[in-house]
Amino acid sequence: MKHHQYAVTPPMGWNSWDCYGATVREEEVQGNADYMAEHLKPFGWEYIVVDIQWSESGAISSAYRPFVPLEMDEYSRLIPAENRFPSAKNNQGFKPLADYVHQLGLKFGIHIMRGIPRQAVHQNTKILGTEKRARDIAKPNSICPWNTDMYGVDHRKEGAQEYYDSLFQLYADWGVDFIKVDDIADSKLYGIHAEEIKMIRKAIDKCGRPMVLSLSPGPATLEYASFLEENANMWRMTDDFWDIWDLLYDMFERCYKWSKNIGPGFWPDADMLPLGHIGIRSVDGGASDRYTRFTKEEQVTMMTLWSIFRSPLMFGGELRDNDDWTLSLLTNQEVLEVHRNGCGARQVYRDNDRVVWSSFGDEQTVYVALFNIADQQQTIEVTINDLGITNNQVELRDVWEQQDVGTITESITYDLAPHASKLLKITDANIKNCHKVTRLNL
Amino acid sequence: MKHHQYAVTPPMGWNSWDCYGATVREEEVQGNADYMAEHLKPFGWEYIVVDIQWSESGAISSAYRPFVPLEMDEYSRLIPAENRFPSAKNNQGFKPLADYVHQLGLKFGIHIMRGIPRQAVHQNTKILGTEKRARDIAKPNSICPWNTDMYGVDHRKEGAQEYYDSLFQLYADWGVDFIKVDDIADSKLYGIHAEEIKMIRKAIDKCGRPMVLSLSPGPATLEYASFLEENANMWRMTDDFWDIWDLLYDMFERCYKWSKNIGPGFWPDADMLPLGHIGIRSVDGGASDRYTRFTKEEQVTMMTLWSIFRSPLMFGGELRDNDDWTLSLLTNQEVLEVHRNGCGARQVYRDNDRVVWSSFGDEQTVYVALFNIADQQQTIEVTINDLGITNNQVELRDVWEQQDVGTITESITYDLAPHASKLLKITDANIKNCHKVTRLNL
Amino acid sequence: MKHHQYAVTPPMGWNSWDCYGATVREEEVQGNADYMAEHLKPFGWEYIVVDIQWSESGAISSAYRPFVPLEMDEYSRLIPAENRFPSAKNNQGFKPLADYVHQLGLKFGIHIMRGIPRQAVHQNTKILGTEKRARDIAKPNSICPWNTDMYGVDHRKEGAQEYYDSLFQLYADWGVDFIKVDDIADSKLYGIHAEEIKMIRKAIDKCGRPMVLSLSPGPATLEYASFLEENANMWRMTDDFWDIWDLLYDMFERCYKWSKNIGPGFWPDADMLPLGHIGIRSVDGGASDRYTRFTKEEQVTMMTLWSIFRSPLMFGGELRDNDDWTLSLLTNQEVLEVHRNGCGARQVYRDNDRVVWSSFGDEQTVYVALFNIADQQQTIEVTINDLGITNNQVELRDVWEQQDVGTITESITYDLAPHASKLLKITDANIKNCHKVTRLNL
Amino acid sequence: MKHHQYAVTPPMGWNSWDCYGATVREEEVQGNADYMAEHLKPFGWEYIVVDIQWSESGAISSAYRPFVPLEMDEYSRLIPAENRFPSAKNNQGFKPLADYVHQLGLKFGIHIMRGIPRQAVHQNTKILGTEKRARDIAKPNSICPWNTDMYGVDHRKEGAQEYYDSLFQLYADWGVDFIKVDDIADSKLYGIHAEEIKMIRKAIDKCGRPMVLSLSPGPATLEYASFLEENANMWRMTDDFWDIWDLLYDMFERCYKWSKNIGPGFWPDADMLPLGHIGIRSVDGGASDRYTRFTKEEQVTMMTLWSIFRSPLMFGGELRDNDDWTLSLLTNQEVLEVHRNGCGARQVYRDNDRVVWSSFGDEQTVYVALFNIADQQQTIEVTINDLGITNNQVELRDVWEQQDVGTITESITYDLAPHASKLLKITDANIKNCHKVTRLNL
Repeated sequence: MKHHQYAVTPPMGWNSWDCYGATVREEEVQGNADYMAEHLKPFGWEYIVVDIQWSESGAISSAYRPFVPLEMDEYSRLIPAENRFPSAKNNQGFKPLADYVHQLGLKFGIHIMRGIPRQAVHQNTKILGTEKRARDIAKPNSICPWNTDMYGVDHRKEGAQEYYDSLFQLYADWGVDFIKVDDIADSKLYGIHAEEIKMIRKAIDKCGRPMVLSLSPGPATLEYASFLEENANMWRMTDDFWDIWDLLYDMFERCYKWSKNIGPGFWPDADMLPLGHIGIRSVDGGASDRYTRFTKEEQVTMMTLWSIFRSPLMFGGELRDNDDWTLSLLTNQEVLEVHRNGCGARQVYRDNDRVVWSSFGDEQTVYVALFNIADQQQTIEVTINDLGITNNQVELRDVWEQQDVGTITESITYDLAPHASKLLKITDANIKNCHKVTRLNL
Repeated sequence: MKHHQYAVTPPMGWNSWDCYGATVREEEVQGNADYMAEHLKPFGWEYIVVDIQWSESGAISSAYRPFVPLEMDEYSRLIPAENRFPSAKNNQGFKPLADYVHQLGLKFGIHIMRGIPRQAVHQNTKILGTEKRARDIAKPNSICPWNTDMYGVDHRKEGAQEYYDSLFQLYADWGVDFIKVDDIADSKLYGIHAEEIKMIRKAIDKCGRPMVLSLSPGPATLEYASFLEENANMWRMTDDFWDIWDLLYDMFERCYKWSKNIGPGFWPDADMLPLGHIGIRSVDGGASDRYTRFTKEEQVTMMTLWSIFRSPLMFGGELRDNDDWTLSLLTNQEVLEVHRNGCGARQVYRDNDRVVWSSFGDEQTVYVALFNIADQQQTIEVTINDLGITNNQVELRDVWEQQDVGTITESITYDLAPHASKLLKITDANIKNCHKVTRLNL
Repeated sequence: MKHHQYAVTPPMGWNSWDCYGATVREEEVQGNADYMAEHLKPFGWEYIVVDIQWSESGAISSAYRPFVPLEMDEYSRLIPAENRFPSAKNNQGFKPLADYVHQLGLKFGIHIMRGIPRQAVHQNTKILGTEKRARDIAKPNSICPWNTDMYGVDHRKEGAQEYYDSLFQLYADWGVDFIKVDDIADSKLYGIHAEEIKMIRKAIDKCGRPMVLSLSPGPATLEYASFLEENANMWRMTDDFWDIWDLLYDMFERCYKWSKNIGPGFWPDADMLPLGHIGIRSVDGGASDRYTRFTKEEQVTMMTLWSIFRSPLMFGGELRDNDDWTLSLLTNQEVLEVHRNGCGARQVYRDNDRVVWSSFGDEQTVYVALFNIADQQQTIEVTINDLGITNNQVELRDVWEQQDVGTITESITYDLAPHASKLLKITDANIKNCHKVTRLNL
Repeated sequence: MKHHQYAVTPPMGWNSWDCYGATVREEEVQGNADYMAEHLKPFGWEYIVVDIQWSESGAISSAYRPFVPLEMDEYSRLIPAENRFPSAKNNQGFKPLADYVHQLGLKFGIHIMRGIPRQAVHQNTKILGTEKRARDIAKPNSICPWNTDMYGVDHRKEGAQEYYDSLFQLYADWGVDFIKVDDIADSKLYGIHAEEIKMIRKAIDKCGRPMVLSLSPGPATLEYASFLEENANMWRMTDDFWDIWDLLYDMFERCYKWSKNIGPGFWPDADMLPLGHIGIRSVDGGASDRYTRFTKEEQVTMMTLWSIFRSPLMFGGELRDNDDWTLSLLTNQEVLEVHRNGCGARQVYRDNDRVVWSSFGDEQTVYVALFNIADQQQTIEVTINDLGITNNQVELRDVWEQQDVGTITESITYDLAPHASKLLKITDANIKNCHKVTRLNL
């Protein structure tokens, strides 16, 4: 797939949702972009994503205000609320903000809801590039159950593809590099909206600008794994993820299920990282303004799983409020190497709450992650043979600590605290015969 | 996975079900083995599989006789009915028949139902290698809804793994190379029986003999794609497949869904080929003794889909009754090359009832299959670019006809009769950048 | 329940849906009312019901026009489209038409969709009797999947009950006697909307005018039988019923299931009678302008089942186009006596496609209906004893023919053509001990 | 229905399950019968029911022992285990024990599982009155998921009705008055087994002895309300009920749903009363040997709901261990009058956790039950008008206390402790017009 080239490694960035809910403002976006450019860019972080509801001038938290008017252009397309995004004045849309982000050497992303604004449909406004109007293409029985902004678009209607084309033409003009489409991968009322995904895929392919396509919310179903791979770059494996251990615990099973459907350009998504200062203007996830409720062990466990699995990494907190610990989670070169270079990630075994994953690095490198997801201390062990290594002994390195552990024979064993994990690297491995599955990049 | 090495290309063979239902006899197995050795072995066909109910002396068709006694050894293990398999006398089991098959240069397979015989449980017979008995390991709420032979085995019970170990030790002693386990991948009452699959995996790994593991019936769910790949060699994508167009039509969607989960050693299975003389002593599939009801176009379409998708190929008819046409379907070297050598098979596009698939062969080779699955003639077209080829023009060859078509520029176009297909080969393709997904063979 | 007094016998009337879909006009309503007053009133027919979409000026068939503007007053209440109901001008609403119907000695009914107009919500219009506005009470995730007019109303919101109160106050002012609320008994997306039914019940109880409450569509679930009885007068047992044998065949099972939950004031509803000239401006039910597709036998069977079961009888055709046959179905005094006076209706037995029902009349009267719902002729028999009669012999009368049959001993037997039925009456029955179930009319 | 005459008031009795699980012994049955004859008979208690597994000689608790042999006669019929029921020796079955119970002036009941013993099927034993054998009538795909004793019986098979006939002939010979059939009203794997219920109905009707038919477990679905009424005397509204508040809390909703389907002879069943000394040899319900975990308030609330709703009353504890309090719950004449004489029971209203029920007694009598099912004290009020009474003032009596409260005007109001209730009686009520629903007793 051509679009796989837009994200040959899993996207890394910042998203406004976990900290600002539906309310983020331009200066906050800029501030986080500045921070990323200064502190994170050298480590591969690049996307700055404005999440939901940027057309609503009066948004006050993560709780939506039903049916309120949204800023919209004459062609039924939502545009940024100027009181929140002052640079959008004079019909400039997100172009100035995208420019700002670009000049920092970063990329710019936005969130949209699938469909066409309900207000456009009730006003029957125009659609660019067709004589048809909003009412002609809206799909009456297609709403989002948790947000009142949009109706779905009926792919069988003339004007439907034109509408999506006009949206992505606008986003291309603005300079959007990343698009997160919501209410589409697992719409709670109707399941997946495959036909709208196809229209969006076509519209991006036609718009002339590479854009990473991210689909929300989850859980997407494996029954659509082929379809998702062929149409998107990332899709959520879960409903919204927050700083709650049970959600992190469940992610191990989700990652296992999706582990055979990952590859360059298509990334099952474990959702944003609710780290650092979050909930500033959000009441989602059962809490409001706070530092992450995850313990340090849990934070490391999350980062380790996301890294070896190669989930996209989208930081959810207010970057400027990061403490040293939080920053250190995002800037460990050896951990990020696992995320960036690993391939063939697999769950080596799971024995109740003992979990071991591994992936391959360059040449003779094998990455290994040991997880204790029990509520009590446990010993986690894996044999070198189980990792597909034929040597009798190997050299082991602690990835988070960036320190050599020493020579290991036969097996690797660690006592781990509850919810803790260990990320390791073997660099002198003789690896058994592998097979390669070829996937075409069109 | 080590077991992936047992089936690095999709298994090819003969299975007794479509022609003889639950009733096949030794001389019929031998006869089909003889035929295979003479006519098919050079083309890669190698498995001779005795399907269900070989322990029942009085089986008369594909309709099961509920609750009838089965032949069983002292350790609760079913053994061949001697009246049907005379060589099994003196406790020799299937060893003599397996030897017969082996000396022909072929491999021998059998069907089993998951679980332990109900008669063993009610008689509380012994289990080899444990003090526990049949009643101790049976899972009371675990039956097959369509066959009364077995209870499921409860993996939490001491003696459970020992039972499966004892089964596979017996099969290894017999010389079994292929095992089809039934009522397990999609049990109609309970879904998949994952824990019994794990016990079987372990038992095979311990038995000291490579055996291909095939799981039935389907449809297996994609949610278990990772699990199935890690534990089996093939699993059914469908419920029983018969010579009915609607079932073949549906297979295109099933193949599409599973197309990202195929690789050396793990093969989603489109089920047996109901070709030639079938239903001889079977009343399944809505008909009895007959030649296949598929038209010639449909037969070619089936073989083409199975080949490019790389489904296992298990012939269902009485081989000795093959006419020339049927034999030709099984012995086309160039078609079988697609089946044997293809990789990265994918549905290039589907536009209603126009379907195009492709896969890669060695070097600069691309295979292309065009399908018209409509009930009227249609033109099917695919551009060279859509196939991932960068040349302006390529040389095309008709695979079934084994004839060069000539030079093609830009796109390939065929008018196809209803239900017909075309299998093509391009040998001078410059292929766009591909990525490789690495999977470890342990 | 007090409201049970509004319909102590099952309602009988005419409804515009089957003939005019969403488009009926005032003169057509008047014309059918005139006909009813002249030809049907003496037989107990009394309701004239204007079905869906009377606020839409441009309605053209039974197919809805999504999102088109509707006529609405300043308080978010839909009012009749003046071009279709000229007497509604000057804010008179349906009062003049109701007056017209009333002066004929008949009663007037209207259809509404549950909820508040989407256009009111998007315009945030006022609600009578509260400071709250449309947007405050709409339930965002509550639409009808087949019609775009309304959002559901959230009973937890201040102003919600006031809205429904204001609706029914308006209807009371107009003189409405019968209200059919749609998208409420079995909303296809959400099941039953129990909380909105409760609000409507309260609003009617407060409005000062008796109104029969009819809930659509079905199938309502038996799990809500108590609730429906306590809140409504009739509720649909089925999705829309049309002149299709399979739908009529299914009704026997539906009637059986609901047969213990019928009583004075609460009537499970088998839906309208698609008889005579229907589909005039409707494309529903798989056909358009036509005479009913039911055969005469089927028409009698339908009328017999509806009568002995005591379903409401709402004629769906253009009354003025009735032929003698159709009129005769509606004006058979003895059949209507079964409908009006029967009690304790029950399925005596069902033996595949032989079905017998009975009910009790006054004193020593027993009604019996024999149905042959097979596609071939069958003999249907029932013993006198099975009917709860202790006499050795009884006098039998053919109800449709209004002729005495003679003395019967032991059992009643008829050969019936496919889809045919027989409705009989026994007037000298000694009936076995019955018990009475008391239900309070509040 | 003729069988309705066998239980014109809701059955009252003792059942061995709650105290002895699957293990009750003859002397325990006799001891409880003796106690009932002495202490409870005058109050209407009459059934002594031996619950599950009386054919199993080695039963040790409420946990079943899978696949163990059961005592069975030559005709595939289970008979009592002699070590547990010594009087059953010499093929006397339960006749001596039934005689014992009968001579005390009480009635005798037993529990059975639907179907035919699996051991009979595997041994293919005879069936009385037919040449067919066990294997011929067993339904292979019909097991109980929680007990391994039986296969279902296939009503389409010759010999099936004969088998059930032979069972009930045996029970009639023994003198059985009450039969509780299990795994039939809501089989957890297959839903309701309607066809086996019909066979049992027929077998009872033919056996020549009146027997009350009780169906377990629940929840039975309202969709089968008509069917259940026509075929049984009582059926469970719930899965097993134990001394757990949440289960009691849920019963209010269940009773509400079923409240329109109660009448002389057909009694939706809220299950046994887990009062007094229970769990003696049972580990069901999350606890073992104990006095009921219900508080006194909860016990009164349970008895009040069961009484006004008219559920069958089957005491579950070891009667001989009753303390005065427990005995007092069973012997309050005025409470039992509500249970015996009430009719037209209905939930007057439910406002969150305030619940009011009422029913009618003889003449001018109205029973009222006020329930506070919240976890904090609440005031519960009901107006006289809501009870259907036209007087301005009435005389009120406390039923549990058997004391007059005094004159009440307009409404009845009580402050009630958490989980507490009040049962009241009005004897001078002028009751509004009621309607009667007639149901025939055949």
